Parts: sequence; C-alpha cells; structure tokens
Amino acid sequence: MADLSHRKASTKLQIKGADGKILSNAKVHVNQVNHEFLFGCGAFEALPYTNGPSVHNGNGTLNEAKPMTDEEKEAFRVRLEDRMQKWLGLFNYGTLPFYWGGFEPEEGNPNTEKLMAAAKFLKSKDVTVKGHPLCWHTGCVPWLMNYDNKTILKKQLERIHREVGNFKGVIDMWDVINEVVIMPIYDKYDNAVTRICKELGRVGLVKEVFKAAQETNPDGIFLINDFNLSTNYEILIDGCLNAGAPIKTIGLQSHQHQGIWTKEKTEDILSRYEHFGLPIHFTENTIVAGPLVAPEITDLQDAHYDDDAATPELEQRQADALEAMYRNLFENHPLVTAITNWDFGDGAWLNAPSGVIRKDNSLKPAYKALHHLIKEEWHTEYEAVTDAEGFIKLEGFKGKYEISAGDQKGSVKLSDDNKETFIEVK
Amino acid sequence: MADLSHRKASTKLQIKGADGKILSNAKVHVNQVNHEFLFGCGAFEALPYTNGPSVHNGNGTLNEAKPMTDEEKEAFRVRLEDRMQKWLGLFNYGTLPFYWGGFEPEEGNPNTEKLMAAAKFLKSKDVTVKGHPLCWHTGCVPWLMNYDNKTILKKQLERIHREVGNFKGVIDMWDVINEVVIMPIYDKYDNAVTRICKELGRVGLVKEVFKAAQETNPDGIFLINDFNLSTNYEILIDGCLNAGAPIKTIGLQSHQHQGIWTKEKTEDILSRYEHFGLPIHFTENTIVAGPLVAPEITDLQDAHYDDDAATPELEQRQADALEAMYRNLFENHPLVTAITNWDFGDGAWLNAPSGVIRKDNSLKPAYKALHHLIKEEWHTEYEAVTDAEGFIKLEGFKGKYEISAGDQKGSVKLSDDNKETFIEVK
Repeated sequence: MADLSHRKASTKLQIKGADGKILSNAKVHVNQVNHEFLFGCGAFEALPYTNGPSVHNGNGTLNEAKPMTDEEKEAFRVRLEDRMQKWLGLFNYGTLPFYWGGFEPEEGNPNTEKLMAAAKFLKSKDVTVKGHPLCWHTGCVPWLMNYDNKTILKKQLERIHREVGNFKGVIDMWDVINEVVIMPIYDKYDNAVTRICKELGRVGLVKEVFKAAQETNPDGIFLINDFNLSTNYEILIDGCLNAGAPIKTIGLQSHQHQGIWTKEKTEDILSRYEHFGLPIHFTENTIVAGPLVAPEITDLQDAHYDDDAATPELEQRQADALEAMYRNLFENHPLVTAITNWDFGDGAWLNAPSGVIRKDNSLKPAYKALHHLIKEEWHTEYEAVTDAEGFIKLEGFKGKYEISAGDQKGSVKLSDDNKETFIEVK
Repeated sequence: MADLSHRKASTKLQIKGADGKILSNAKVHVNQVNHEFLFGCGAFEALPYTNGPSVHNGNGTLNEAKPMTDEEKEAFRVRLEDRMQKWLGLFNYGTLPFYWGGFEPEEGNPNTEKLMAAAKFLKSKDVTVKGHPLCWHTGCVPWLMNYDNKTILKKQLERIHREVGNFKGVIDMWDVINEVVIMPIYDKYDNAVTRICKELGRVGLVKEVFKAAQETNPDGIFLINDFNLSTNYEILIDGCLNAGAPIKTIGLQSHQHQGIWTKEKTEDILSRYEHFGLPIHFTENTIVAGPLVAPEITDLQDAHYDDDAATPELEQRQADALEAMYRNLFENHPLVTAITNWDFGDGAWLNAPSGVIRKDNSLKPAYKALHHLIKEEWHTEYEAVTDAEGFIKLEGFKGKYEISAGDQKGSVKLSDDNKETFIEVK
C-alpha cells in the first residue's frame, strides 16, 4: 500500500449549528468535494460553452459557426452541455488559451470578455483556472513585428500587465512564458518574441516577463513551461532563480506522441527538477490511444492521426498508461501538485485520439481510469459522530469537504496549514 | 585577402633620444616583439624547468626523478632548456596547473613556491600566465571529503582567495571553475566539489567562486571553462551573468581527438557564445597527428595512442587543420582573443601525438605552421623615417613593439586605446 501521507491531513473540527450552538453527539457525514491536488485538463471548450454557438479553433479565438437552425443550435448546446458536465465530473483545474495571436489578432481589440466569461464560469464550479501562455514565440501576433525590439518588449510587458491585472481574482495562475529553451533559436518563421529573446537572452527575457506578472498580482502563481526537459531547462531554471525571477512553479510538458514514458524516464526527468524544491506541474500531458508517431518525425506538427487510429486495445493502453503515470506522480512525488491532461476530447491537435472522451462524447477507458483514481480511490468520505463538545476528527485527502448533519451542511478546507477548527452547518 | 583591421591599430608616435631631444628625420626600425592576441600553450614544463630535475606528472605536482649522475642531470637540463626555448619561440601565453589534488595533496601544504617560480619565470619572458583551475570536481583533493558541505564550500572559497591573492601581479588570469555543466551529475567517483555543486546548484556555485576571485583581485580576468559547448553551456553562462557572476571571459575547450572540427561546427559553436559580447578563449585545443579515437569511446580517458601512432601524413594533417582553425579564429572572430594549444610536446595526456614538437624535441609541421602565422604572416616589421617633429606612423598588428634608431632602443604598446604618443630610445 502506497504511503499517501503527503497527500493527506487531519484536524480537530468543531461543528456548530445555524443557531451557533455546538452540535454534540451528532451523526455527521464527511464528504470530500474537491482536491487540493490539481487534476487538470485543457478547458478550451468552456469558451464556446459560455459564448454561444461558435467554433473554437484551438488558439483562443472564436470563429462564428455557419448559420444554424434553432434545432441545430439546440443540438449543439446539448452536445456542449454534455461535454462540459463530463469535464466537470472529473477535473478541478482548467487551462484557458491566451495565445496572443488568437487573443488579440487586431491590436487593441483583445478577447478579454469571452475569456472572462469562460474563466468565471469555471471558477463558479470551484475549478482553478490557469491562463496559457503570456509570452511565446509560436502563435504570436504578426502585427507585433511592425515594431522595433524596444517597443516589442514594452508591448509584451504591457500585455502581461493587462491580462494578469484584468483577470486577477478570477485567474491567479499563469504560464508566464512558454518554451524558452528553443525561443531564441526558433527558426521556422520570424516572430517578434524570438527577436527580443535573441536580444535580451533567455534569462534576461524571463526576468522581465516574470517581474511584470509579479508586480501586477503579487500573490499570483507564475509558471515557466517547457517541452525540452533536458539539462538545458534545468540550467535555465537554475539561472532564472539565481537571477531573481519569481518563478513559483515549474511546468513540465509531457506530450507522449512518440512513446509512452517509462517510469525510469519519468524519474530521470524529475531528478532534474525536484531538487529546486518548488512545486512541479505536469502542464500538458498527452498519452494517445493511437499508433505512435514515427521517431523520424522531429516536429510533431508534421504528424497527423487517421480518424480510425484508435482501437479498443489502444484505448485501454492509454488508460493503463495514464493510470500508472498519475499513480506514480501522486503517490511518490510530493512536489508534483498538478497534472493537466492536455486534450479533453479526441480529435483536437493533430486529430489525435488523445482525449478522455471520444468525438461522440462517449467516455473512454482513460476517463474511467482517472475517475476511479480521483473520485474513488483518492476520495475521502465517511460517517462520524461528534463528541460532547461537538468535535470530530477530520482526516483524509487534502481538499474541500462538505460536512452534513441531517439536512444542514457546511464546508471546510483540509490542508497542511489547517486553521479552521470549527464550521457552522446550516 | 582577409580583413584583419580588428587585429590592427595605428597611432602617431613621437620619438625622442636618451637626451630627451626629438629625433628628427631619423631612420628607425619598427619591430613587433609580442602580440596582444594570446597565442597560448600548456606551460606545465615550466615547473621542472624552474624547479630542478624532477618529473612533472601532469597534475601540477613534482615527483622527484630517480637519482641522476651529473652527466644525466646536465642532459636533462639541456633537453628542458631546448624545449623551453622552443616554447618561448612560439607562444606568449601559458597555462600553469593548479589542480587542487596536485597543488595541495596534504592539507595546508600547497605547492605555492614551485608554481610561483614557474609563473615568475614565464612573466619575465613577457608571457601572460593563466592558472587552471581553481574549482573542479576532477582531480580534487580527497581530504576535502572529510568535511561537511558547508566546510567544503568555505575551504573552496578560501583556496580561491589564497591562490588569487598570492599570485596577484604574477598571475591575474584564472580558469575559476571548470566543467560546471557536468559537475553536479558527475558520477564516476564521489568528490567534494560535486557534493557542493549538487547542493548549491550550478549557478549558485559559480556565483560564489567568481565572487571570491573578484574580491581578491578586482582587476583579474576570470574565466568559466567547459568542454560541453552545447546549449547547456550557453544557458549556464546566460544565467550566471544575469545572476551577477563577474565572468570576464568565456572559455571553450576544443579537444578534437574524435574528429577535427569542420568550419561549420566552429561557426555553430561560436554562434552560441559570441552574442554575449565577451572575449572568448579557446582554452584547451587539441588536434592530434594520430588516428582518430573511435566514436564509441564516450570518455576520452579510455583512449590511448600507440607510440608509433603519428605518421608524416598525419603530422601534416594536424598542421593544416591547426593553421585553418587559427586562421579562421584570428581573421573572422574579433571576440576570440586567445587560443591555447593544450599540449606542447607529443606523448602527454593519453600518449597522444598532440604536441607541436615530438618527444625528441624536434619541431613538427604544426610548430612550423603556427610559427609562420604568428611570427611571419601576422607579424609587423618595417623601416621608417621620422619627420621634422620626430613623428612616425606606428601601424600594424596589436602588441608590443621595439623601435630602434641605430643602437638606441625603446619599446611601446600598440592597441586600440593607444595613449602613448612618444617613446624615448636609449
């Protein structure tokens, strides 16, 4: 049996009724309703869900759908509603797209309102929201290249101030900068961010963008994120931290299109990042229920999956591999505090069968495997009886709990630094 | 014809006689006697040369030779004298070994005097001396492992203060830290430096050791040095500079035992380091007049050359490759300000035919090729006549010049920031 003590906490909890009187010798039901651990997923479809029947093209913009009859609109709504409920049935942490190219295709006209609607909806469902990303060479806005480097940097920092400021209180977690290892040597196409990274150097740019984010939201959680998990990234983080960049969490991408990571590989990678002592998020995890992408393909953008790539066996392999990975990270790596499964549904990036539901919204074995872990195996629920002073021992996986006594309910957070020692049930 | 303007300077020079009077309309001979560019070589044998008939074992210690007759002693002296003269006939920059394991095998009993004798001798010959290295995991002293990490760091920094302080004015250039990219993950054997690098992180340790060196000799030139010339090292330097480490010069090792670098490879590597705008030293260059070491050998320590590995053809290939490399770096890369050919004589590390002279002291084609470049092609010497006010135009490769008028001589430095506008010839 794995030792999960690092994922659990306990406290003495005193329960009072709505009248303020202690509830002595009363039966109560203790039920965990959220996890402190962030079980995440791309939440891009919260955008069309909250913004009407439009098509989400994956870069954060909303393209108007072709005209629909009322019946088609209703079918679209029902389908999205079903997907959203399934999303919320599994995850407590969602990544929303802030790719600059999609967010502000025309300078001065950002998609703030649409993103805000999606973010507020998720927050209302007790979902922690992360914005992704604030600075990245890929998918950057072309209009930025009309400016000189000094102005590009100024506009980049203004963009960070704007988004972090506007969304403060709704989104307090950001992938501030993405894929810095390759950033200054990225040569697929000219772009404004590569230009300024070349000029400032990697660490110089990281310092600037993190400083901007931190100034705007001093309590925010700011991530650096990369797919290059070699010594390059380790040294980059080492340098950035020593140079004073307020990196709060290390983001690791784990798109496994070309081979499912062995446990040894995972351990090897974590050995390069755990020594910093910072929380680690698996920010973009993909395990595909399809054939592996050939090793000679060096850029995943060149890969494409057939519509019938998935088979029942491959779907089961995906589920097994996901379960093994989540189990290892949750059980053995206390510094890992989040895992985000990148795709919710099959058929998104590269048409990959990489989701936990299929295109027709049916649940895949991967969904069921994660549901079992998150909502059953790592879930705490029990009956207790208060003592004469109204106390029970609250003990279990860290997170949010609902305590009910008859038809009265209250909620409380269980964490390492538990300070709440009583609740009122109403 | 290559544009060598970045290696040259010019100034108006007024010449006065010993009596202080202007030398008008006089014939003078202008002769460059040293280069500003550092043409370097390992100068390990300056140790036995200045410290008597003892055997230098390559790590900086002197092992007493077996007892010699007076005749043998004389032969030994003559051989060393011959080698030293040939060394001085080519190079103006020497690396002396300060490997901690050889320098202070017994705690508190460092080889300061012997190293000082060698360094002072070289300096007296107008040779710039560099100490190598002050912090390195390989060849570190075993006694250091008896201490806890806090004490190891303290002793490491004390060692830096001691050597940089003792040799100040004689040695003002140091490889402060060597091979940091691999340092914390070096796993061939336990050693004190890897231990503290693991704890402080690469950038954390670099900051500490450079701070110690800089404090002790604020005008010193302090290098970081590595054989790993990948993006790892680029990011490491970026991080260290942003974290405030006073790195003055970037050291690149270029041991080419497994393949002579193509020009493309050299350019690719330099593209990762020139953008910092700092001087670059090729600190350890090796091109071997022997068969290449097999690619499957991942650690050069496992390679060994036969005594008869060199052939006339291979010696010529070595000379041609050295010439091409020096020419490219000198002509096309203004930021490269030093190249050190690691081995002076054949048969040192790995018994490699990597020197510019053979074991029997005879000159190899490599010596002659470098001599041609350094002492002929890139050498300035001409006759001039002073004008009525005693002026000549001094113009040529940067460095030190001897100006003679009849049997009167004076010397002057020619560099970009030339301030001397007159000399006295005596």
